[in-house]
Amino acid sequence: MIIDVLTLFPDMFAGVFNQSILKKAQEKDAVSINVINFRDYSTDKHQSVDDYPYGGGAGMVLKPEPIFHSVEAVKEKRNAQHSKVILVCPQGERFTQKKAEQLAQADHLIFICGHYEGYDERIRFLATDEISIGDFVLTGGELAAMVIIDCVVRLLPGVLGNEESHQNDSFSTGLLEHPHYTRPAEFRGMKVPDVLLSGHHEKIAEWREKESLRRTWERRPDLLDGYSLTEKQKKWLEEIKKAK
Amino acid sequence: MIIDVLTLFPDMFAGVFNQSILKKAQEKDAVSINVINFRDYSTDKHQSVDDYPYGGGAGMVLKPEPIFHSVEAVKEKRNAQHSKVILVCPQGERFTQKKAEQLAQADHLIFICGHYEGYDERIRFLATDEISIGDFVLTGGELAAMVIIDCVVRLLPGVLGNEESHQNDSFSTGLLEHPHYTRPAEFRGMKVPDVLLSGHHEKIAEWREKESLRRTWERRPDLLDGYSLTEKQKKWLEEIKKAK
Repeated sequence: MIIDVLTLFPDMFAGVFNQSILKKAQEKDAVSINVINFRDYSTDKHQSVDDYPYGGGAGMVLKPEPIFHSVEAVKEKRNAQHSKVILVCPQGERFTQKKAEQLAQADHLIFICGHYEGYDERIRFLATDEISIGDFVLTGGELAAMVIIDCVVRLLPGVLGNEESHQNDSFSTGLLEHPHYTRPAEFRGMKVPDVLLSGHHEKIAEWREKESLRRTWERRPDLLDGYSLTEKQKKWLEEIKKAK
Repeated sequence: MIIDVLTLFPDMFAGVFNQSILKKAQEKDAVSINVINFRDYSTDKHQSVDDYPYGGGAGMVLKPEPIFHSVEAVKEKRNAQHSKVILVCPQGERFTQKKAEQLAQADHLIFICGHYEGYDERIRFLATDEISIGDFVLTGGELAAMVIIDCVVRLLPGVLGNEESHQNDSFSTGLLEHPHYTRPAEFRGMKVPDVLLSGHHEKIAEWREKESLRRTWERRPDLLDGYSLTEKQKKWLEEIKKAK
């Protein structure tokens, strides 16, 4: 996969892209990530990228030309089979793990990161996807792009080893994860549940499944709405509700 | 406000914290941001921070000691009136603009960034808040912490100038923002709506309010559920629905 990030703040990205899984993914050639300053595609002599809004109001609005030119330039350069142009903005479709899995199928992702008050509306015509990471206001699209890139890249084939498997992640199974414990068995009076020390694999698997269900019901009951419970899970859920 | 970020990947943060609004906020002394490697608080000779999970399974789990010690050390050092200890994790409360406004009231925020398979469950006892930025799986808590910090810091007094006002941001008003346009008035056949060029302030304000309503209804009808429409907005919404 090739990822091109169009931004006015290229220096924001190096720390994130050169660490941990994103670094490994690039070393393994699973992905090539490029950060491009779209100011370089401005056509006027002051290299301006924004201007005052028509109709008045505070803040500056990103002009269409530099972004159109930069998207067209990277599309032509990569000449990919399956490019997606992603506009990160608060008004977009909500980002989810399912969306990450869908984006992981593309061979070329272009991210347009806004900053300042907003985009000229006509820039939306470039986008194949408008994505929001949540109902909160960021200074710019850069952090949202990093979040999406991190989620997508770890799903690419060969990026995660067995030790970092994503099979049991929260949201991958449809339920929240069960609690984890490691040594010491007792820390400041807080003990690891006996069953985890028992060595009884079947009971441990059952405890984990039940705790995953309990946690989902307690914290995110909305996730159960779209989830098909097994007969055993239905019985457990009744027990959990009664015990509350 | 003082922010302490506890992480195993301190180098991820510099690019984000030293740009744009976060940089300005620190220069204006509205916030002091410190990134601390909690590996420095490990007490064993190998400086280990994680261990195998009790009960078996893939992945490593963060041990309680280094995180307890580092949180206790920064709390003692800052001695703040109103500290919050934020665990970023997929199982936490969903982050929203309202939550950002609430966190902006504290004078000390401590972020615990997980990595690897998960946290030892006992670490949750340290947290005053468990926050998730969304239903997707990140490599670690670092990007989520950066997102929350960016949202919170721009709300602190004196951080945004008039030019960067957050009064009209999406979610601050309860509706999505209206479209923005800037020059040129026509770009590749796409024209700026006449009303914005009219100079008629009242009509412009009305157009913007209506388009904000239209966009919210089209893209995020769920936001209208918790919103009190004025009589005029109710009438507009009927028109918008009919015209569709």
